[in-house]
Amino acid sequence: MDEQRQLEQLRTEIDATDGELVELLLRRRRLAAEVGKVKRQLGQPLYVPDREAKMLEDRRQQAAAVGLSPDLIEDVLRRVIRESYQQQQAADVHLQDKNIVVVGGAGALGQLFVRLFESAGASVAILDKDDWPRAADIVAGADLVLVSVPIAITPQVIADLPELPARCVLADVTSIKQTPLQAMLDKHQGPVVGLHPMFGPQQQTLAKQLIVVSHGRGQEHYQWLLESIVRWGANLQEFEASAHDQAMAFIQVMRHLSTFVYGVHLARERVDLQQLLELSSPIYRLELMMVGRLFAQNAELYADIILSQPQNFAMMRRYLQRFDTIIGELEAGDKAAFLREFAEVAAYFGQFSTDFLNDSQRLLSLAGDTHQIR
Amino acid sequence: MDEQRQLEQLRTEIDATDGELVELLLRRRRLAAEVGKVKRQLGQPLYVPDREAKMLEDRRQQAAAVGLSPDLIEDVLRRVIRESYQQQQAADVHLQDKNIVVVGGAGALGQLFVRLFESAGASVAILDKDDWPRAADIVAGADLVLVSVPIAITPQVIADLPELPARCVLADVTSIKQTPLQAMLDKHQGPVVGLHPMFGPQQQTLAKQLIVVSHGRGQEHYQWLLESIVRWGANLQEFEASAHDQAMAFIQVMRHLSTFVYGVHLARERVDLQQLLELSSPIYRLELMMVGRLFAQNAELYADIILSQPQNFAMMRRYLQRFDTIIGELEAGDKAAFLREFAEVAAYFGQFSTDFLNDSQRLLSLAGDTHQIR
Repeated sequence: MDEQRQLEQLRTEIDATDGELVELLLRRRRLAAEVGKVKRQLGQPLYVPDREAKMLEDRRQQAAAVGLSPDLIEDVLRRVIRESYQQQQAADVHLQDKNIVVVGGAGALGQLFVRLFESAGASVAILDKDDWPRAADIVAGADLVLVSVPIAITPQVIADLPELPARCVLADVTSIKQTPLQAMLDKHQGPVVGLHPMFGPQQQTLAKQLIVVSHGRGQEHYQWLLESIVRWGANLQEFEASAHDQAMAFIQVMRHLSTFVYGVHLARERVDLQQLLELSSPIYRLELMMVGRLFAQNAELYADIILSQPQNFAMMRRYLQRFDTIIGELEAGDKAAFLREFAEVAAYFGQFSTDFLNDSQRLLSLAGDTHQIR
Repeated sequence: MDEQRQLEQLRTEIDATDGELVELLLRRRRLAAEVGKVKRQLGQPLYVPDREAKMLEDRRQQAAAVGLSPDLIEDVLRRVIRESYQQQQAADVHLQDKNIVVVGGAGALGQLFVRLFESAGASVAILDKDDWPRAADIVAGADLVLVSVPIAITPQVIADLPELPARCVLADVTSIKQTPLQAMLDKHQGPVVGLHPMFGPQQQTLAKQLIVVSHGRGQEHYQWLLESIVRWGANLQEFEASAHDQAMAFIQVMRHLSTFVYGVHLARERVDLQQLLELSSPIYRLELMMVGRLFAQNAELYADIILSQPQNFAMMRRYLQRFDTIIGELEAGDKAAFLREFAEVAAYFGQFSTDFLNDSQRLLSLAGDTHQIR
């Protein structure tokens, strides 16, 4: 029983160390909150990539020097840093002189922007379904009208807007860009910009989130809006509306539709999900999560995204045709064809496939950390 | 510039805190290594779910009490605990009296088992391609013959084995179970067991990994093998070979094949991957990673897994048929059909879909932590 007592003793010491860890993280969080305050006073952006990279690199070197895994300290610090960003999100008041109208501000994404603008000191008005009789009053004096309504009605809502002040910025946050941008340019002679926030409304902050910008007209007049978005921590990417929409055929339509049919197939094959989970490696569990999570979300939203660009169906038909051909080859036992196609795609992915394998391995390890209990 | 100096000062303090963090994690790792040693002396398993759960819960409560996010401390500790398990993997000598032959021991998965058995003190011999002339000598006196060869040749390799000692355990690690298990039962009158390690050969340890067990014959004679696997930290799940293979139609064939065709489609559509990545939200980046990573791996292995069960092609044809029907509905603009099917699948997933959404959200946040620099 001596070793058993030794084990208990060691566990007590580990618990004490973990207690110190909590204290240390608390101290760090307080310091980070202070940093956030000072940055706001200085008007500096929340997210400074170089500072973060250097901070991580210094700690990696220290860890390596003492024989601790550099990946461990980096993973831990990244997780801690995320928490800091969330802490630092508190009001950065810099839009006190702006009057902003969010059309569809009662929706999930609209609410996020309302909150952000309000926390920055702007006067924010909402123009939602029931407010249209007062629309002209609501937009009077607006510096920005941001349209955040379902994709299927976006062009009509834009067309129905009352006349806007000449210097007012008209912007939208729809997940396609060509049609809404054109509708906005047709509607309004002043500054116009299309935005596509590439994240779901469950996101609490913009820190490190991606937002696509498709320029319309008069960029100098909406530069303040883009600067606010960067200040909130987002990562802006400029894309032509047409290039954006083409890529979305794959990033949204191809993905949502194949995930949807995957789910339909599992349901119709009456697959026992509990059994599937018991048999799942972390990677398959992740795959199943990616399918299942779709069905906890808004069916209308997915229907609208898929139906918004009918020209994508021809591309999906080509996918089906390829699937059909490949199954035919496999049914004929043509392993050589499979290996040939595999090599073709491996060449197409090039270095990306190895990078993806390494990155996903790292992520699956993180997923594996939580696998047992949740 | 006063605030600028204050910012520098705060950053210096944060760096000092992070330096302390490295020291603390180093101390913890040393304690955990001690725990590993004592556990080995006591012959106790590496992974004790209750101890881990209690440790996490205590820290969560401490964090909540001082106003720190309980999720933060849990994520950090889980990452730290993973490192501890890897540290604790050093030799646990308990198989000194076993003679083990790994057929295909030069392959990636075979090597992992060779390493594990050797670290546990067993005498391990390898029977690989060039060793067949000496096969009878190699298996003489074996307590375990573990077959780890490509799925396509597994039944033949088993049939070609020399006669084994009567009390020798015959086991395999193939990713289907019915055919190999039957081949082993036909070959050998002694104890027989089928194993399916549900992880890739890149895995360094068995800690928290899933291994499926399909019992063949004489469980009391291979109980020692299962106990070793648990001692190494793996999670064993018992499944009938037929139920296992049915589930694998979805977990492997459906998944690998649809991922494969997804890759073929992207390549043939000449999609610009760099542009796709620039436009990717964390969740789509993850999806693209899951597709691309396949093509950094062994084409033969995937071909063999897909071709090993030709009866699955009918199931895949049903999937294609469903896809075709749904595209037809969408082409006809039948949103109501989409919404109806969506509701059907949402009902099928039930609580799982919400759980998956929450779990994946948590994981995507972890992925997002690393998004900017890698």
